[in-house]
Amino acid sequence: MSPDAVKKLLEDVQAGTVGIAAALEALRGLPFVELGHSTVDTHRALRQGFPEVIFGLGKTVAQIVEVARALGPEANVLVTRVRPEAAAELTAALGGVHDEASRTLRLVRRPIVPRGRGPVAVVSAGTSDQPVAEEAAVTAEMLGNEVDRIYDVGVAGIHRVLHKTERLRRATVLVVVAGMEGALPSVVGGLVGKPVIAVPTSIGYGASFGGIAALLGMLNSCASGVTVVNIDNGFGAGYAAALINRREEVA
Amino acid sequence: MSPDAVKKLLEDVQAGTVGIAAALEALRGLPFVELGHSTVDTHRALRQGFPEVIFGLGKTVAQIVEVARALGPEANVLVTRVRPEAAAELTAALGGVHDEASRTLRLVRRPIVPRGRGPVAVVSAGTSDQPVAEEAAVTAEMLGNEVDRIYDVGVAGIHRVLHKTERLRRATVLVVVAGMEGALPSVVGGLVGKPVIAVPTSIGYGASFGGIAALLGMLNSCASGVTVVNIDNGFGAGYAAALINRREEVA
Amino acid sequence: MSPDAVKKLLEDVQAGTVGIAAALEALRGLPFVELGHSTVDTHRALRQGFPEVIFGLGKTVAQIVEVARALGPEANVLVTRVRPEAAAELTAALGGVHDEASRTLRLVRRPIVPRGRGPVAVVSAGTSDQPVAEEAAVTAEMLGNEVDRIYDVGVAGIHRVLHKTERLRRATVLVVVAGMEGALPSVVGGLVGKPVIAVPTSIGYGASFGGIAALLGMLNSCASGVTVVNIDNGFGAGYAAALINRREEVA
Amino acid sequence: MSPDAVKKLLEDVQAGTVGIAAALEALRGLPFVELGHSTVDTHRALRQGFPEVIFGLGKTVAQIVEVARALGPEANVLVTRVRPEAAAELTAALGGVHDEASRTLRLVRRPIVPRGRGPVAVVSAGTSDQPVAEEAAVTAEMLGNEVDRIYDVGVAGIHRVLHKTERLRRATVLVVVAGMEGALPSVVGGLVGKPVIAVPTSIGYGASFGGIAALLGMLNSCASGVTVVNIDNGFGAGYAAALINRREEVA
Amino acid sequence: MSPDAVKKLLEDVQAGTVGIAAALEALRGLPFVELGHSTVDTHRALRQGFPEVIFGLGKTVAQIVEVARALGPEANVLVTRVRPEAAAELTAALGGVHDEASRTLRLVRRPIVPRGRGPVAVVSAGTSDQPVAEEAAVTAEMLGNEVDRIYDVGVAGIHRVLHKTERLRRATVLVVVAGMEGALPSVVGGLVGKPVIAVPTSIGYGASFGGIAALLGMLNSCASGVTVVNIDNGFGAGYAAALINRREEVA
Amino acid sequence: MSPDAVKKLLEDVQAGTVGIAAALEALRGLPFVELGHSTVDTHRALRQGFPEVIFGLGKTVAQIVEVARALGPEANVLVTRVRPEAAAELTAALGGVHDEASRTLRLVRRPIVPRGRGPVAVVSAGTSDQPVAEEAAVTAEMLGNEVDRIYDVGVAGIHRVLHKTERLRRATVLVVVAGMEGALPSVVGGLVGKPVIAVPTSIGYGASFGGIAALLGMLNSCASGVTVVNIDNGFGAGYAAALINRREEVA
Amino acid sequence: MSPDAVKKLLEDVQAGTVGIAAALEALRGLPFVELGHSTVDTHRALRQGFPEVIFGLGKTVAQIVEVARALGPEANVLVTRVRPEAAAELTAALGGVHDEASRTLRLVRRPIVPRGRGPVAVVSAGTSDQPVAEEAAVTAEMLGNEVDRIYDVGVAGIHRVLHKTERLRRATVLVVVAGMEGALPSVVGGLVGKPVIAVPTSIGYGASFGGIAALLGMLNSCASGVTVVNIDNGFGAGYAAALINRREEVA
Amino acid sequence: MSPDAVKKLLEDVQAGTVGIAAALEALRGLPFVELGHSTVDTHRALRQGFPEVIFGLGKTVAQIVEVARALGPEANVLVTRVRPEAAAELTAALGGVHDEASRTLRLVRRPIVPRGRGPVAVVSAGTSDQPVAEEAAVTAEMLGNEVDRIYDVGVAGIHRVLHKTERLRRATVLVVVAGMEGALPSVVGGLVGKPVIAVPTSIGYGASFGGIAALLGMLNSCASGVTVVNIDNGFGAGYAAALINRREEVA
Repeated sequence: MSPDAVKKLLEDVQAGTVGIAAALEALRGLPFVELGHSTVDTHRALRQGFPEVIFGLGKTVAQIVEVARALGPEANVLVTRVRPEAAAELTAALGGVHDEASRTLRLVRRPIVPRGRGPVAVVSAGTSDQPVAEEAAVTAEMLGNEVDRIYDVGVAGIHRVLHKTERLRRATVLVVVAGMEGALPSVVGGLVGKPVIAVPTSIGYGASFGGIAALLGMLNSCASGVTVVNIDNGFGAGYAAALINRREEVA
Repeated sequence: MSPDAVKKLLEDVQAGTVGIAAALEALRGLPFVELGHSTVDTHRALRQGFPEVIFGLGKTVAQIVEVARALGPEANVLVTRVRPEAAAELTAALGGVHDEASRTLRLVRRPIVPRGRGPVAVVSAGTSDQPVAEEAAVTAEMLGNEVDRIYDVGVAGIHRVLHKTERLRRATVLVVVAGMEGALPSVVGGLVGKPVIAVPTSIGYGASFGGIAALLGMLNSCASGVTVVNIDNGFGAGYAAALINRREEVA
Repeated sequence: MSPDAVKKLLEDVQAGTVGIAAALEALRGLPFVELGHSTVDTHRALRQGFPEVIFGLGKTVAQIVEVARALGPEANVLVTRVRPEAAAELTAALGGVHDEASRTLRLVRRPIVPRGRGPVAVVSAGTSDQPVAEEAAVTAEMLGNEVDRIYDVGVAGIHRVLHKTERLRRATVLVVVAGMEGALPSVVGGLVGKPVIAVPTSIGYGASFGGIAALLGMLNSCASGVTVVNIDNGFGAGYAAALINRREEVA
Repeated sequence: MSPDAVKKLLEDVQAGTVGIAAALEALRGLPFVELGHSTVDTHRALRQGFPEVIFGLGKTVAQIVEVARALGPEANVLVTRVRPEAAAELTAALGGVHDEASRTLRLVRRPIVPRGRGPVAVVSAGTSDQPVAEEAAVTAEMLGNEVDRIYDVGVAGIHRVLHKTERLRRATVLVVVAGMEGALPSVVGGLVGKPVIAVPTSIGYGASFGGIAALLGMLNSCASGVTVVNIDNGFGAGYAAALINRREEVA
Repeated sequence: MSPDAVKKLLEDVQAGTVGIAAALEALRGLPFVELGHSTVDTHRALRQGFPEVIFGLGKTVAQIVEVARALGPEANVLVTRVRPEAAAELTAALGGVHDEASRTLRLVRRPIVPRGRGPVAVVSAGTSDQPVAEEAAVTAEMLGNEVDRIYDVGVAGIHRVLHKTERLRRATVLVVVAGMEGALPSVVGGLVGKPVIAVPTSIGYGASFGGIAALLGMLNSCASGVTVVNIDNGFGAGYAAALINRREEVA
Repeated sequence: MSPDAVKKLLEDVQAGTVGIAAALEALRGLPFVELGHSTVDTHRALRQGFPEVIFGLGKTVAQIVEVARALGPEANVLVTRVRPEAAAELTAALGGVHDEASRTLRLVRRPIVPRGRGPVAVVSAGTSDQPVAEEAAVTAEMLGNEVDRIYDVGVAGIHRVLHKTERLRRATVLVVVAGMEGALPSVVGGLVGKPVIAVPTSIGYGASFGGIAALLGMLNSCASGVTVVNIDNGFGAGYAAALINRREEVA
Repeated sequence: MSPDAVKKLLEDVQAGTVGIAAALEALRGLPFVELGHSTVDTHRALRQGFPEVIFGLGKTVAQIVEVARALGPEANVLVTRVRPEAAAELTAALGGVHDEASRTLRLVRRPIVPRGRGPVAVVSAGTSDQPVAEEAAVTAEMLGNEVDRIYDVGVAGIHRVLHKTERLRRATVLVVVAGMEGALPSVVGGLVGKPVIAVPTSIGYGASFGGIAALLGMLNSCASGVTVVNIDNGFGAGYAAALINRREEVA
Repeated sequence: MSPDAVKKLLEDVQAGTVGIAAALEALRGLPFVELGHSTVDTHRALRQGFPEVIFGLGKTVAQIVEVARALGPEANVLVTRVRPEAAAELTAALGGVHDEASRTLRLVRRPIVPRGRGPVAVVSAGTSDQPVAEEAAVTAEMLGNEVDRIYDVGVAGIHRVLHKTERLRRATVLVVVAGMEGALPSVVGGLVGKPVIAVPTSIGYGASFGGIAALLGMLNSCASGVTVVNIDNGFGAGYAAALINRREEVA
């Protein structure tokens, strides 16, 4: 609530056009719904321009369903990290489309409004990084972006990524997903003049330490303009890409 | 070199308007200058739209001067991590302005073209985070952005940051700098619907482990849209903010 | 045994009212029962004012039953970390109430004496933190405290926790449970002037490292008066809260 | 500002006894003073019942002086982590007493009101832990507590701490400071039925890893009711002890 | 082979009483048997005075059987870390006694010669440390030592271990087993003037990090004379105790 | 594509013997095949002289089969980290030989050309290191090398490895595989004047931390000429050994 | 105080031969002297058979002098980790001999009673490990042991240590000191049938991590009977060796 | 000593042409010189074909001089990690050439015999990696190799390294030096079919953790044939390169 809004409210109270109870309510009006186990943030769509996304990991099917319903019957909803064994039950209860590759459930009840200033490139280093890359891609698409998938172009065969230079440069923002040594964002970041969001994955073994090697590699990237999200956090990267890519007029 | 450019070059060769030696040269023409110790990337301005920034840490004064000169007499140059004791020598050799708070040297030879779509907010949690915050702010300014500094608004006195909500929301991109537990980006990320770049600082002691606590906190932020750079990497955050904020027409 | 008690005992020996064997016994009288596998501390109730709590993790059902019985038929007993598959067998052997949410078994044979100076607030950041929060809440209740549960008020939607400020301030001690970046105790600690016990949880993935991120965040809290217990240690937090909250007259 | 206060304010506006500007101001009135580098939280005394303590580490003498003055001429002020070489300059500017053992500067302008329900015991394991123990002790004293210092009673000579059992039991809250393996809080926690705040110190070498060994030992304490603060954080322990020990009638 | 033995051999060659082939063989004679997958060290009994112990973890039943047989039909053999599901098959093939508590298989074909100078005390902190303690105890027994088991005497109830002081002091060497904060060896080491071998266990959760907390605690023990073995390495502790305790005349 | 080749191509364009489209194609011709999920590098045989090896971990059977087929019907193919349960399906689809010890599938369609300058010794410390050692050995054999396996010669029985000195010295390159403390490469590296590739394994428990102890031991080897690969990376060691051992004339 | 002694005391009280005050005193009599900063354990000589050793690190010269004096004018005293710049002042105040190589000060006022059953071998891997090795050697000597120094016999030149096999085998206990990969104790442990105390040193760089690599190597030693002390803890190793080596009749 | 040599010696003893004392001596003859502090391995030249290199770090000037002299007046000697302040003293005592860039002292008394099969490429990512790269280059040169230095070609400007592809491919072995994210070896390893030795450097800040990020990146390299040495270990890489590159006929 902006100071101007508060001033206007106070003037209305002074003028008698708004009663005390109503004013008190307006000053207090809290943008969330309490479910007991969860406090659903229904105003986030207003505040950030996107609906709430439900992080499926560690939630029961019942909890996911309840939260999804609390968002209202017309909301577009994205559930991430859907366990394969919960997918059928969820789609039965909520409808929508389950996508195995990205481990997501999508409920598209209203047309997705295109919001991006240009394509979001989702780039991955290896075959095994695909689930994380797809989570990023699907998230960006749900938030109104066109996505260009450029997969399996890791740095050990550097010509593979160089060959894609034009597509990389066409993107307005790039999500680069890699496990093992996590070097791909540095190379991509050096090739383009656009924001690069690096996503380390837990792909690897031994001294990859579940993605720490890739994470450290990306944090120490010698290419300027690279920022990093948590290990395997495809959703976070897709969401950040959507925020970056958002056209002002549809924000 | 784009495919179209190569096609054009080949057509010129076929037509005889370009000789073989010249064509070979063109295909080979490499956008860097070799200094022995450094290979200066003079085409980066073309490739990314910004001049090369010189990372001062671990370079001798002579090396910095040589690299700065290799960028040409008209380039705007930013030197970061300038050691206080090297500042006088550097300004004597290169001119420019040394700024102690941000540990930078700025050589502004041409007017800085405004490139941002809106203000970049640089937000910091504590007094001691200021050098990193200033490095981010100065970098963003050098790259053509208006910067709104919002300092010392850490989460232990949550009303301090809440009071700044309007200014936070006016920014098109936010750089949030914090040491210790690094919680500020989560709070800011929840308040705004804009990209947040989190910068952990090495401020703290004991189990802050030189910034690891803040870094982990930021990577695990429960607010969507937060991305992270290396500990104390104010430059990287300012650079990424500039890439994100860049108006298409001046890219 | 206090010096005065020893002095009294010696005087009794000197006076002949206590025999040597009895005195020796008194000086030796050890406040525990040996079960072979365990040495049950039956005097803890005297020493700390609370009964022994049985940590169920890593104990067989038979061991838990034997320890519970060694505490005497009238003791109130709390078993924590009860494996779901052991619950039926335990309640069959011991009676009592198994609570799935907190993973506890409670044997309430005598009325629980109210011991607190005020309510203990148990605050949690997310839905998945609930088992740990409930373990803290149930422990505090078993030890004679009124508990006020304030759940799912993580910092990414800061208005959720701010809305609860009055309830937070009414508590005499607060247990704040959070995973991921563990920022909630800092915010709560800044809002209230009461002891805050922070409990990191293992909720998260990737660089949360099984709760290390939250643990470090809490140890580095910029809010004064925050103390921390082990990852997922809801019991420890509830127990410490009870010690802090205890009214002198019922200690 | 409580809902009742807001309601009252609105009624006053409605009644015309409070003007819009004044009401707006009241709703906005922010409890801090902006110094540019710092945002001093002058209302903390109200909110938490104690004055702000200035953490001296990483602040210039000028910054400390400015913050101390912003707290007002009558405030009792505690500056911690005072560098020995800054002490003279600080006392010249601010007055007060510098204490080398605890690395603090105390400005006691008004009598310190006794606030504790009983003595705070500050217990240390070894000679080298003394600076941290003293920081805790001085902090607790400044906040109105009687402190009982019990030093150099580490567990390798277990009779030393056992001999102090009566004094330990007289305390209403205990701060236990130890480096190396950090075992003392477990032993003390088992001897008393009171809240124990464990403070790991960076004392040790090799695999003590700057206090990590002690920190982990304390977090894994097998004694119930032990909570932990950051390595070397004597101030935090003293502050938490004061919060725990506070008599309701003087809160 | 000692220099004297070599000298004697050479003299025999010179004298013609030993042929070249035999001498070459003697100089080469290698004290091991090659099984393909394993190179069994049959002379270790000679070299160290004890038979080889077979570490069962990561070996197939067939491999264990083959190695056990290679040690000869009269050797006393100890197999450690026997998986419960492999026990029946192993005893069927080799005979011997499987002990679940210590996870060992013992083949006692010859009377075990008493070798110790006094009893070995095996001391444990908690019920869950028992498997590791038993592995140490059984190992020491197999190597000819009398073992005094003192279990569940962790430091949180310090009177439990103090009550055992006399038994602790009677031992010539002590193995002290503890998980969580690993403080027991420090207390025991301070009570006795004998070698203490500390064994950290992986018992604990959260910040115990699988035994790291206990390991670090023990390495930083403030009691002199404490040495440490790997996490859960009951065998190693029992073996070292046997080496320390060995009477010279039976070495 | 070498500069000479480019020059030749340009001359052909100039001479009209190559058309623009063809030249453009030649300049672009990319040495890989896109499969959607994977980008198979078919020219690696040219570039490095060996066929692509398929890392089986984290790939579905269908993906492995598709990649194997993309390498062409005449290629020799090595699949590593074959899950036992996938072996039958893979051999049904592709033919070839599955080897359980090394967890590999080998498709030898053309005679393997001997490429080594001498034997590659693969040395292992313990029985449990065998799968990693075999992966190295099989890889080296598939790449045209004779392999000398020297197994179970760990340093605790130092005579075992010393006895093999002659065989160690005959090798032109040595792969030394060890878990636990990883000391074998130091000893071997001191015995021979040849390149030693050290492979830490995850064999061990407790403070071996899944191979970190062995990895650090090998990185800190006091023997010159030792280089290290990732934990359990038998393939990488075998591949590097093959590169080192390669005869120039068959490269 | 043993139960028998207590019984005897009680009988004396009953008999009137000991008064209450005296008995109380006897039961209380505490074996330490309080110095304010330190609580000197004067009875340790009785309890463990050795005088207290003063750990010099982190103590002022004045504190060391005061503690040394509290031990009595006839005690043999060993001060370890003596800073070179404090040596002159200490010897001026206390007398004794400062030894630079071991960083110790020795006050030998009474003849050192030989206490060992045989020689203690102190073995080191490299030249730089000497200070730690000497600390161990001097400690063992002060506690009544003959020491055999075997230095610079690291495993990269394995013949160096093999050449010393006879001397190694003559020792009754061995202290083995090594930095870098810390492999020497494994080799020595395999050569002898005696207790081996391994001391990791902080010698090394990069991935030696200040001695962690050596520490982990030693904890994972494949040789049975190896126990480990803290990084650089020469004193602890020498002390443990003395405890192990002690002849019963002089204990 | 080979079996054949032993056989021959025994035959000589049998034949009386070699006396017992001489034979004993020959069997014992140990290839090292004992200096007290060091045991110089004079036969390493024989055993490995290269002279001993003296690691200067942590040795006094006197110790370095003594070791250098023990290697004989005709030996070529390389001293690494020469502290700048020790250089003058060392060259005064030993002669030779001090090179600041590589921190080495070279004593070339005999012509260096070319031993390589081709050039060794030493490749570095950034200006600050130069000291480590030069240590590798100088080591390789001292051991008889031609070195091709290719510096400052980090992956953020990928065209820099691609432009050097031909020179990279001409080398028979490559040493690739990089700090920060350590990605260069992966790219180089993908471009060439030759052994690549990766050297992580401690260049970087924050989450580079003194070279850990680069080390992990290199250990997880997705390019086959990459092996790794310790952080900043230029010497080790140069030495390994020389072993790999050695022509058989000059070994």
